[in-house]
Amino acid sequence: MRLIADNLQITNPDIEKAVADFRAEPIQELVRACQKAGAHMIDINAGPLPRDGDKKMVFLVNAVQEVSDLPIVLDTTNPQAIEAGLKVAQNKVIINGFSLEPKKLDLILPLAKKYEADIIGYLLNSSGHVLPNADERLQIAVEILTEYQKTGLDKERLIIDPLIVPLIWQDGHLQAGEVLRTIRHLPEILGYPVRTIVGLSNLTAGAGRDPRRLLLEQVYLSMLTAAGLDMVLLNIFHTKTVAAAKAAAALISEKPFAWESL
Amino acid sequence: MRLIADNLQITNPDIEKAVADFRAEPIQELVRACQKAGAHMIDINAGPLPRDGDKKMVFLVNAVQEVSDLPIVLDTTNPQAIEAGLKVAQNKVIINGFSLEPKKLDLILPLAKKYEADIIGYLLNSSGHVLPNADERLQIAVEILTEYQKTGLDKERLIIDPLIVPLIWQDGHLQAGEVLRTIRHLPEILGYPVRTIVGLSNLTAGAGRDPRRLLLEQVYLSMLTAAGLDMVLLNIFHTKTVAAAKAAAALISEKPFAWESL
Repeated sequence: MRLIADNLQITNPDIEKAVADFRAEPIQELVRACQKAGAHMIDINAGPLPRDGDKKMVFLVNAVQEVSDLPIVLDTTNPQAIEAGLKVAQNKVIINGFSLEPKKLDLILPLAKKYEADIIGYLLNSSGHVLPNADERLQIAVEILTEYQKTGLDKERLIIDPLIVPLIWQDGHLQAGEVLRTIRHLPEILGYPVRTIVGLSNLTAGAGRDPRRLLLEQVYLSMLTAAGLDMVLLNIFHTKTVAAAKAAAALISEKPFAWESL
Repeated sequence: MRLIADNLQITNPDIEKAVADFRAEPIQELVRACQKAGAHMIDINAGPLPRDGDKKMVFLVNAVQEVSDLPIVLDTTNPQAIEAGLKVAQNKVIINGFSLEPKKLDLILPLAKKYEADIIGYLLNSSGHVLPNADERLQIAVEILTEYQKTGLDKERLIIDPLIVPLIWQDGHLQAGEVLRTIRHLPEILGYPVRTIVGLSNLTAGAGRDPRRLLLEQVYLSMLTAAGLDMVLLNIFHTKTVAAAKAAAALISEKPFAWESL
């Protein structure tokens, strides 16, 4: 299981201010802490970046890669910002991401081809809506792969995000099961062992400081691992969730004694 | 997920002595504590009961049902002791269990028919050995169901135990994954949603007081739940494992807001 720190978020006031002032220090301190906590990659969650998006993304990518060799996930809906980040990136990059929405297909997917980057495809319909069950999500996955392959890119570079939705949604409890089923059936439906990713914090979004949040995260990540998940975006400072992720991965590892190094 | 307390074990010196002296008190105290901790059933793990097996099992069953209405699992390899327990049982009973070993087919399986009890079938071959992978276990499951149906019993009363083996076995790390695959594929292979059970403590058997034991238990039980497990034998006083079991079950429950009552 590849652990991607989701901690570098522009919605965090300290990070927002650092970006506004172009001060790398607070960002680099956070990135070092994420790496120390076991992150395999760093998600740069820059939001929509309505102003100076390209300049800010260049600053963020450089801030991160000055202190870390970890792969970077460019997480914004702003195609100009993504392209600016891709141009300066020296670390490995994943674009986060595209969907069947026409703007994403036209403006974001081509960047994966132009810069030969891995890219995440969200299982949303062309209007940008989450589908309620696994069958519909799998149908979208087929369409995502079709669009992806039109670019001529190697399908091994595609990563599918089946989209965890908050448990507090009206059908959130059903969707948790549907996401597991989606991950389990993707390799069979797409005909190859496509890589999968989820944003774990979505599960308990809106639940405030509910003490059950961490338990639900740990347990659901174990279940996702059993279903075949490859990568997870998570708060890397949730040490028990990280421990659960490693234990779950070790339990289905083909390496002898993987669990002994927990 | 049905939680079956595995705490009432004759290998526990206090219980062994209570049984030898036919003193119900220590047993009943334990059963009350198990029920309070959230057990849905009580496993009476009486071992092989080489002497006075029938008398001891009658004593144990009566001791339990005097203080609890919970279903009882008769867990011994001694067919006479099982039959003695079945004769006096007023609570619901599960026989634990039979396999393709000729002695089990001849002496234990018929008791399920005679007393109309649920019974656990272990995925062992006819020599009593665990099979190394899911395909072989599933083949055994087909044979188990065939033997079971020869008795004329309703297949809904069969419960399959795919057999967790200790991680410290040479191929223990591979078997953990094979057990998940076995549980996932059983309904498709047998053609109906057969109930499944595991003995969770087997996973970390022989690991002594290794602090990772509890983490591995919690994580693996979450993974087993995702695979479709119905029942688990566990130490009901492992409160975090119980919490993980409930959270995992809630996350795939079809009941709205199941997770809110965690």
